[in-house]
Amino acid sequence: MAADGLLDTIDRQLDWQRDLYRHFHQHPELSLNEHRTAERIEAELGGLGLESLRIGGTGVVTVLDNGPGPTVLARADIDALPVTEDTGLDYASTVDGVMHACGHDMHLVALLGAVRLLSEHREAWSGTYVALFQPAEENAAGAQAMLDDGLTARVPRPDVALAQHVMPAEAGTIGTAPGPVLSAGDSLRITVHGRGAHGSMPHTSVDPVVLAASIVLRLQTIVSREIQPGQFAVVTVGASNAGTKSNIIPDRAELLLNLRTYDPAVRAQVIAAIERIVRGECAAAGAPREPEFEYYDQFPLTSNVAGAHQTVTEAFTDHFASGQVFEAVPATASEDFSRIPDAFGIPYVYWFVGSVAPETFRAAVEAGTVSSVIPANHSPFFAPALDPTLEIATRAHVVAACAYLRP
Amino acid sequence: MAADGLLDTIDRQLDWQRDLYRHFHQHPELSLNEHRTAERIEAELGGLGLESLRIGGTGVVTVLDNGPGPTVLARADIDALPVTEDTGLDYASTVDGVMHACGHDMHLVALLGAVRLLSEHREAWSGTYVALFQPAEENAAGAQAMLDDGLTARVPRPDVALAQHVMPAEAGTIGTAPGPVLSAGDSLRITVHGRGAHGSMPHTSVDPVVLAASIVLRLQTIVSREIQPGQFAVVTVGASNAGTKSNIIPDRAELLLNLRTYDPAVRAQVIAAIERIVRGECAAAGAPREPEFEYYDQFPLTSNVAGAHQTVTEAFTDHFASGQVFEAVPATASEDFSRIPDAFGIPYVYWFVGSVAPETFRAAVEAGTVSSVIPANHSPFFAPALDPTLEIATRAHVVAACAYLRP
Amino acid sequence: MAADGLLDTIDRQLDWQRDLYRHFHQHPELSLNEHRTAERIEAELGGLGLESLRIGGTGVVTVLDNGPGPTVLARADIDALPVTEDTGLDYASTVDGVMHACGHDMHLVALLGAVRLLSEHREAWSGTYVALFQPAEENAAGAQAMLDDGLTARVPRPDVALAQHVMPAEAGTIGTAPGPVLSAGDSLRITVHGRGAHGSMPHTSVDPVVLAASIVLRLQTIVSREIQPGQFAVVTVGASNAGTKSNIIPDRAELLLNLRTYDPAVRAQVIAAIERIVRGECAAAGAPREPEFEYYDQFPLTSNVAGAHQTVTEAFTDHFASGQVFEAVPATASEDFSRIPDAFGIPYVYWFVGSVAPETFRAAVEAGTVSSVIPANHSPFFAPALDPTLEIATRAHVVAACAYLRP
Amino acid sequence: MAADGLLDTIDRQLDWQRDLYRHFHQHPELSLNEHRTAERIEAELGGLGLESLRIGGTGVVTVLDNGPGPTVLARADIDALPVTEDTGLDYASTVDGVMHACGHDMHLVALLGAVRLLSEHREAWSGTYVALFQPAEENAAGAQAMLDDGLTARVPRPDVALAQHVMPAEAGTIGTAPGPVLSAGDSLRITVHGRGAHGSMPHTSVDPVVLAASIVLRLQTIVSREIQPGQFAVVTVGASNAGTKSNIIPDRAELLLNLRTYDPAVRAQVIAAIERIVRGECAAAGAPREPEFEYYDQFPLTSNVAGAHQTVTEAFTDHFASGQVFEAVPATASEDFSRIPDAFGIPYVYWFVGSVAPETFRAAVEAGTVSSVIPANHSPFFAPALDPTLEIATRAHVVAACAYLRP
Repeated sequence: MAADGLLDTIDRQLDWQRDLYRHFHQHPELSLNEHRTAERIEAELGGLGLESLRIGGTGVVTVLDNGPGPTVLARADIDALPVTEDTGLDYASTVDGVMHACGHDMHLVALLGAVRLLSEHREAWSGTYVALFQPAEENAAGAQAMLDDGLTARVPRPDVALAQHVMPAEAGTIGTAPGPVLSAGDSLRITVHGRGAHGSMPHTSVDPVVLAASIVLRLQTIVSREIQPGQFAVVTVGASNAGTKSNIIPDRAELLLNLRTYDPAVRAQVIAAIERIVRGECAAAGAPREPEFEYYDQFPLTSNVAGAHQTVTEAFTDHFASGQVFEAVPATASEDFSRIPDAFGIPYVYWFVGSVAPETFRAAVEAGTVSSVIPANHSPFFAPALDPTLEIATRAHVVAACAYLRP
Repeated sequence: MAADGLLDTIDRQLDWQRDLYRHFHQHPELSLNEHRTAERIEAELGGLGLESLRIGGTGVVTVLDNGPGPTVLARADIDALPVTEDTGLDYASTVDGVMHACGHDMHLVALLGAVRLLSEHREAWSGTYVALFQPAEENAAGAQAMLDDGLTARVPRPDVALAQHVMPAEAGTIGTAPGPVLSAGDSLRITVHGRGAHGSMPHTSVDPVVLAASIVLRLQTIVSREIQPGQFAVVTVGASNAGTKSNIIPDRAELLLNLRTYDPAVRAQVIAAIERIVRGECAAAGAPREPEFEYYDQFPLTSNVAGAHQTVTEAFTDHFASGQVFEAVPATASEDFSRIPDAFGIPYVYWFVGSVAPETFRAAVEAGTVSSVIPANHSPFFAPALDPTLEIATRAHVVAACAYLRP
Repeated sequence: MAADGLLDTIDRQLDWQRDLYRHFHQHPELSLNEHRTAERIEAELGGLGLESLRIGGTGVVTVLDNGPGPTVLARADIDALPVTEDTGLDYASTVDGVMHACGHDMHLVALLGAVRLLSEHREAWSGTYVALFQPAEENAAGAQAMLDDGLTARVPRPDVALAQHVMPAEAGTIGTAPGPVLSAGDSLRITVHGRGAHGSMPHTSVDPVVLAASIVLRLQTIVSREIQPGQFAVVTVGASNAGTKSNIIPDRAELLLNLRTYDPAVRAQVIAAIERIVRGECAAAGAPREPEFEYYDQFPLTSNVAGAHQTVTEAFTDHFASGQVFEAVPATASEDFSRIPDAFGIPYVYWFVGSVAPETFRAAVEAGTVSSVIPANHSPFFAPALDPTLEIATRAHVVAACAYLRP
Repeated sequence: MAADGLLDTIDRQLDWQRDLYRHFHQHPELSLNEHRTAERIEAELGGLGLESLRIGGTGVVTVLDNGPGPTVLARADIDALPVTEDTGLDYASTVDGVMHACGHDMHLVALLGAVRLLSEHREAWSGTYVALFQPAEENAAGAQAMLDDGLTARVPRPDVALAQHVMPAEAGTIGTAPGPVLSAGDSLRITVHGRGAHGSMPHTSVDPVVLAASIVLRLQTIVSREIQPGQFAVVTVGASNAGTKSNIIPDRAELLLNLRTYDPAVRAQVIAAIERIVRGECAAAGAPREPEFEYYDQFPLTSNVAGAHQTVTEAFTDHFASGQVFEAVPATASEDFSRIPDAFGIPYVYWFVGSVAPETFRAAVEAGTVSSVIPANHSPFFAPALDPTLEIATRAHVVAACAYLRP
């Protein structure tokens, strides 16, 4: 298969990729502020003789036009998190309070590696390869920013889109699954209004503290009673805040909700139930004003279409050794990647790349302590095993693309 | 004062009263079924040469027309309760499961005694005395039944109305108070509608069990937050019932509420809050039908007008010994007596008569056990001390009436 | 394959089976009272020259010993339900208020048919066939009753156990699935204790109505917060009852819960959470006595072991036409069948048999009205299509058994 | 009566008092920072030839020893509030964000006026007068600070203590009442502990948002069910705060409660119920740590002993005109004054002084808008009518003291 020949030279470029990885890890930048990151990506692409586009502020895209054939879009996210690194690595973050704690540095360097391989082996494939470096995945703003900046009109329309994410599985493995792999995530700010009063005069108030408490308890019934048993849905009230002093009844309360679903119909059902419950509780309380609902940080569902998933998974299975490709279980995390293929109206495949040193992972599995001892994404101790994760992630991008870009 | 002379002959009739009391106590009849009781009252009145009217089925009224002067209406209730007597008295109830456990037998015999004294001493007073024996106080139906049967058109319009009730205080004492002495009481049946389903399929239901629970908790906020602190109001959910099987989600829930207030404005506030909360909770639940509210067993407020209270209390203070007349605290119980004076638009006085043997009461006071060891009204052990309660209650009716019926 | 030859003669006995089905349908008997049903089963087995055992009162077992080889136990349940039939069938129930509304008549006649085929074609198989007619599935009492009556000691130890159930799918189809196919079901009676009081004196009470409401709302958090999102668990409060009068605060409340789970660890987690919440709420209320927990109507999990499921499903796929065998989704209903193989410590396979006339089913599918127009089990309108359901169910028993009993 | 002669010269000093009032009103200082206020009080006392003591930092005491007789302690509070004045008065606060919005400037100048009158008319009374200027009433710290600094050992033991407060009643009137006049006030910080988690993984959390909501609702039942109906008790949750982000389940929640009671037994009952409920709810939630209770800003009950109240009220009634002295209703506000007499173990009298211009007040009464249009204490618009409030408050102190200090 084409990818196999292409990948023969990967050893020659791995040190370049490792250095790049250490560089980006040491210089993390927060969402929408990935200026130096974008400039370095552009510089590296330039070094490969490739032109690039700036789209969406700190987004970078390069297009490898290589004759007739399908168009594949591969995306890597590039932003870091407001976390203070505590890994003790010699290439730890040099930026106080900012860290690549979610592996986007791995994603972007793997994609640069794939671009170099495809660029240097144009004889081995045919078609168009669009490598997209997306900012601001963490706050769900980056994909939208690129779309708002005209992405769909500025690059060739792809036939399929690809993306990957490191996860706490054994390094050297790849996990794929058809259907939902990441949940849709929605944040919601609810403001309910009461009437303030001195704490000794509750009869002159409409108490928003009691109102908010009633709402919080009633919201529990959405998952417990309204959603079909076994159906995935999460309704979390992550914050509930009202008042600052013991003897002043405040005039409002604010709830911050986070919703997770795998099914748009369930998502719609959850949102309708929340608004119905909040309005009903406000009516029960005699609230003087209607509640306010503000949706934010909305992540789309990530759900692999069966056909594309099969194409890519078969390519992985062909390329990697037995046991390296496993069937992933859907994660409750969320991503904004799917906005891009959804904007084009094309299928996509999103897969996971294990990043924990094998011996560490196996010991944790045996001890039953995977979730407790292995630092998860967003932890100050998050530290992917550079090898073989970086090589596997680079290979995965090339293999997946070549499943479409056969010469 | 006139009453003093009138009462000189009370000793001659007390045995007749005691026998009557034992008779009625042995033959209690439930509300609206006081047939033999009413017949015996009529017979005794006839024995005194008095005619009587039947009003409201088992209500009996006799009118003593005795020349110019004011008209006084005195009322006694006559019904018993569905309680199985356990007093061990030799004149205990002979009717299984029915008992004069609230002292109405005492009330009616005291009134008969007062009628006899006034009838036999017409020279000592002037005016009109209307003695009214009312059925069905316990279920709040009797006063209304007499009014519905034309009471106000069938007896002379009184200037004042009088009634009394035995209570767990020292026998020999009389308690009066201006303003509210008994609360208004309202019962309310609330039916809320959900949608039934098999217990394993909550998502196809609107669960009325959860809805009813939410309502019960939310109703607590009426007294805790909406009523002015220190203001008297009780909102009790005495019964909450839904469902019969563990694995069937029912389609409705029923709540039975009891409300107690001393102030019509507070009562209106409580009722409005209940209906607002229930409707709001049904909306929050997505209930398929509106809730239903059925008010029943509604007892009016009993509140002595200051002027009439003062007239009667001064007459008591003049007649009884020092220490016998005390200022009563408002009770949370309810009565339907006030419907009658309210229908006439006249003031009324309602007072309490102690009924616990003095040595028993004093020992309980000293031990701090009044509420725990002395059987209260409605208890199977309720047993007023016949002496001196009966005599004091008889004297009270005569003294109060003569405060108005001066010759 | 062996079963194919065996089944050549099924046409000759179908009228006998159809008559039996109509007979049993017309004469339904409630759980543990299946006396005439058991006698008729014994009579039919006797007509085939087979001896039978009475086990567990109204349970019937016959053993076909047919040389060396494995032992297969096949079970049919035989009880009816307290439902008034409203199908209008000419063979509708003749017993007022009792109906075979769950298809157990179909199960038992299919098993009788399988026994006849195996009995008449002993040359076509080798081993031992244990046909077990179990009473009282509906109240989870029958399997236990047979075990308590010594079942495991009184029949040969089987190597595998088989059972089936009609369901609202197209008649002519068979549904199987590995792993959980029916949920574990537990009922739980919780009694919480307060302190009663007159409705106007809440301060002397510990109000169990409010306590029960708090418990009901708090129980919602088990599924909404404690169970992993997407994990199947149902906690239904099917009944919540306290009090009978508006003005009496009762001294206790009773909750009837129904629990459904597919995983014993989740079941244990749910039960622990319920008891923790109820005890905590009673402590919060200052309840004067500990709550009481009484578990009843406990149905075990029905979960097909992968190996046996594969053996039987492959035999079905070989025997039936393409499209007749489908992969079933787990149902939230429960069964007590698995108690029997669990007592023997053997694997089992439980499958579903479609029972809706094909044209009816397909029209409902097209109209999207399957769940609304097709009468489900336990409905007064439940009416399996006699043909081809009875034949398919009979074939299924023979085919599944012969997958093991190869000559 | 002595006071009458004493007060003949009040007109000569009122301008001095008015100027002082305007001075203090223009220069308000926050609790425990009343440095310039204390210095000015000392200076004015020095101007009267009186020595003064500093007790409790910014507390000032002067003792007028005037021969045999009882000792009377009169107290005025002196601190201001963090309120931005918005009265538009020409003597409005000159300190940004600080205002005498509770009339303590009036209290202290009235007491200075009383000191001057008593000091200049020593022939008109006999005994000892202790004038005490107390800091930090607003945060309940000042009385305690003076006690902690040795107050009881540093001044003569009084026989009675006196204090007054301006209120939104008609200027020129004085309100007194026996028994409770101000509530006990307690603030309480409750911290409950859960276990934090990502918002998409509630099953790994113990959700403190849900726990806090349950507690808030359950706390409502203290007033609604546990306190005797009509008994005064307020349990306000003025603040309930947990979490900052929608998708992070926090690990704790904080509730700030304010309690108001008139009866120490009710206060103890409320506190016990709160702690019982919070502990029970934490147990129900499976909280990993015990809740924490921190009491702060605790104001004692202010309750006039009957005898002292009668002595002072009779003196007021003698001195003031008919209609000027009214029976006050208990207020739900709180004070720390009573700590001082309680530390000495002596009775005290606390009365109210109307401070609204009569024409304004009467118009508001007629319009039924007293509570809506008249700026209450703590409002940025709070502006006592300097005349006649200051004179009446000065007279009240002299008259009340002279009721004891008869020559």
